Amino acid sequence: MKKYLMTPGPTTLPEDVLSIMAQPIIHHRTKEYQEINQRVNDGLKYIFSTQNPVFTLASSGTGAMEAAVCNLLSSTDKAIAIVGGKFGERWTELCKAYKIEAEVFEVEWGIPLDMDRLRERIKATKPAVLFSTLCETSTGMLFDIKAVSGLCQEEGVMLVVDAISGLCADPMLTDEWGVDVVLSGSQKGLMSPPGLACISMSQKALEKASKSDLPKYYFSIPKAYKAYQKDSAFTPAITLIRGLSCAIERIQSEGMENVIKRHSILAEATRAGVQAIGLELFPKNPSNAVTAVKVPEGMDGKKLTKLMKDGYGVNFAGGQGHLEGKIFRIAHLGYCDKFDVILALSCIEMALSDMGYSLTKGKAVAAAEEILKQLILS
Amino acid sequence: MKKYLMTPGPTTLPEDVLSIMAQPIIHHRTKEYQEINQRVNDGLKYIFSTQNPVFTLASSGTGAMEAAVCNLLSSTDKAIAIVGGKFGERWTELCKAYKIEAEVFEVEWGIPLDMDRLRERIKATKPAVLFSTLCETSTGMLFDIKAVSGLCQEEGVMLVVDAISGLCADPMLTDEWGVDVVLSGSQKGLMSPPGLACISMSQKALEKASKSDLPKYYFSIPKAYKAYQKDSAFTPAITLIRGLSCAIERIQSEGMENVIKRHSILAEATRAGVQAIGLELFPKNPSNAVTAVKVPEGMDGKKLTKLMKDGYGVNFAGGQGHLEGKIFRIAHLGYCDKFDVILALSCIEMALSDMGYSLTKGKAVAAAEEILKQLILS
Repeated sequence: MKKYLMTPGPTTLPEDVLSIMAQPIIHHRTKEYQEINQRVNDGLKYIFSTQNPVFTLASSGTGAMEAAVCNLLSSTDKAIAIVGGKFGERWTELCKAYKIEAEVFEVEWGIPLDMDRLRERIKATKPAVLFSTLCETSTGMLFDIKAVSGLCQEEGVMLVVDAISGLCADPMLTDEWGVDVVLSGSQKGLMSPPGLACISMSQKALEKASKSDLPKYYFSIPKAYKAYQKDSAFTPAITLIRGLSCAIERIQSEGMENVIKRHSILAEATRAGVQAIGLELFPKNPSNAVTAVKVPEGMDGKKLTKLMKDGYGVNFAGGQGHLEGKIFRIAHLGYCDKFDVILALSCIEMALSDMGYSLTKGKAVAAAEEILKQLILS
Repeated sequence: MKKYLMTPGPTTLPEDVLSIMAQPIIHHRTKEYQEINQRVNDGLKYIFSTQNPVFTLASSGTGAMEAAVCNLLSSTDKAIAIVGGKFGERWTELCKAYKIEAEVFEVEWGIPLDMDRLRERIKATKPAVLFSTLCETSTGMLFDIKAVSGLCQEEGVMLVVDAISGLCADPMLTDEWGVDVVLSGSQKGLMSPPGLACISMSQKALEKASKSDLPKYYFSIPKAYKAYQKDSAFTPAITLIRGLSCAIERIQSEGMENVIKRHSILAEATRAGVQAIGLELFPKNPSNAVTAVKVPEGMDGKKLTKLMKDGYGVNFAGGQGHLEGKIFRIAHLGYCDKFDVILALSCIEMALSDMGYSLTKGKAVAAAEEILKQLILS
């Protein structure tokens, strides 16, 4: 059975990204590698919309989240973490691991931030750093980072944004919005294999990092990354860097605005499709990366995603935490185009129908087609 | 120009390891991935000669070294690091990063350990952990880990061995010798792409780790690896795990004893070759992974390795630290066979001759051929 990956990471890789990883390994202390590395560094600045350096770590995205915590904070610092889903929670777990007092700013899963309440909390706590998420992968919710960053600047708080699943799908205008630290993983919108994490740091953030007293070595940005931008302090994940370099070239040639626009049309088509057959979206402000859909009342969501995966060969993500069995998530992220959305919706129509849900077949697909027209080259 | 990699990591990858990385990405929360992961876990136990679990991290080998430090030690613990080269030094840097009192047990680069002096030091310091290196990559020196482990057991000290470049080349009998923690990287004897690190931990080490008070999250063995042996707490580096799985199958089918024997013959042939043309070995007890050779008196070693790389297409490693320009290093590690040694020696003959060194061409190759005979199938 032909298999399809509609999960919010790892995402499907372009064929040229796959094939470049099969090329013979090269050494990292060579001009050849340094040129690839330079292209990656430059390309990431473009994608992150920043003039600041973007450092690439050989780790999962969580490694870059840990790097943000242990580089930016010092032991006496306070922090606030906006928690509106599973990945927001990771910020508090990370701070706890470093014995940092991190307040949780709880946001109901799938609901937008109350900016007034956030401002009050910041004024009361006076944290050094606010941790936030662009797209909360577990709920498909997009947070208004532009507004959060404005608030942080007014209050003199450093902002760290987990853009692991949001980057390339939702606008992330790092410098324009004045965000100090943005991080992402390779296996999402960057259309690359998992195993790399990227983190951009403003001059202010780098200065704070140079004074941090928290223990670190592999994740020390000043010592292990800032000082080694030409190649790497430790042996880099050479095949993955090559894959990333190839994917970055694709993004540069499509252009970031077009990349974001494509994601926004794919997301809109997906939402229109599921709503056309009576399904409800979970988040109030959905991201362009992933659409979280409520499982119809009375239906077992785990059975539904299992049927779609094992019966139809299409792998969607289910719900996490208290949403397990209650939602399923359709990613339209990275190397994704119109007919990926069509096949996802077709699979959903068939599987829901199998499970006794009443719908008119073709209706979700038809609604999506109306919107996907915008992607046809004329 | 055809290029050859004779560096002690990254090493050349077998063709099937390369091509498996070009296969479409699969999701890690699937039976398909879990089966690959299980094969990797089992295969690593075989390669590490242990019944204990071997955990695979998405990081360079340094990540596993950091994991050993921040999991095994607690803030009040003392440690001793045997330092006989650049990578031994890394242990003390890592301990320092975590504010752990780590004494340096200095060993002259390339010279064997004085076991009596080590015993005295251990008795005086009473460290919780001793950090050591199997093959010190920077000098090509092999340490007698069996003896060190015996001493550690007598003195009740936990032993951690960096086998990053030694694994698969030199015997590393983890359980037989009673070593608590052994770690390695993917890009050396494991014939896999860089970006993965593997660490085995005895039950005693895991118990100590469960009580450690040092901060960690991504590298927390109890929370992030021991608890997730079926797949992974964080998105794993899926393509690299697949490559590693393929390389492990090769090692299993050759058999560890044969793998070690092959490395030992390649190393012996290399040593015989360079000595036949009057060169001197640097370390007193050379490893099977890499042969460090003294650059002839008066010759610029950096020029020599540059000529061999840029002029001949063969990439050898030079010296590090105070050995820069004074030695060059020939790796015979991983996916390496008789004619790799021959081409390396031929290149050395030609380049040395170019640089005015007096030698009889073919003499190094002839000496090696005598020994490599043992590898011919009859």
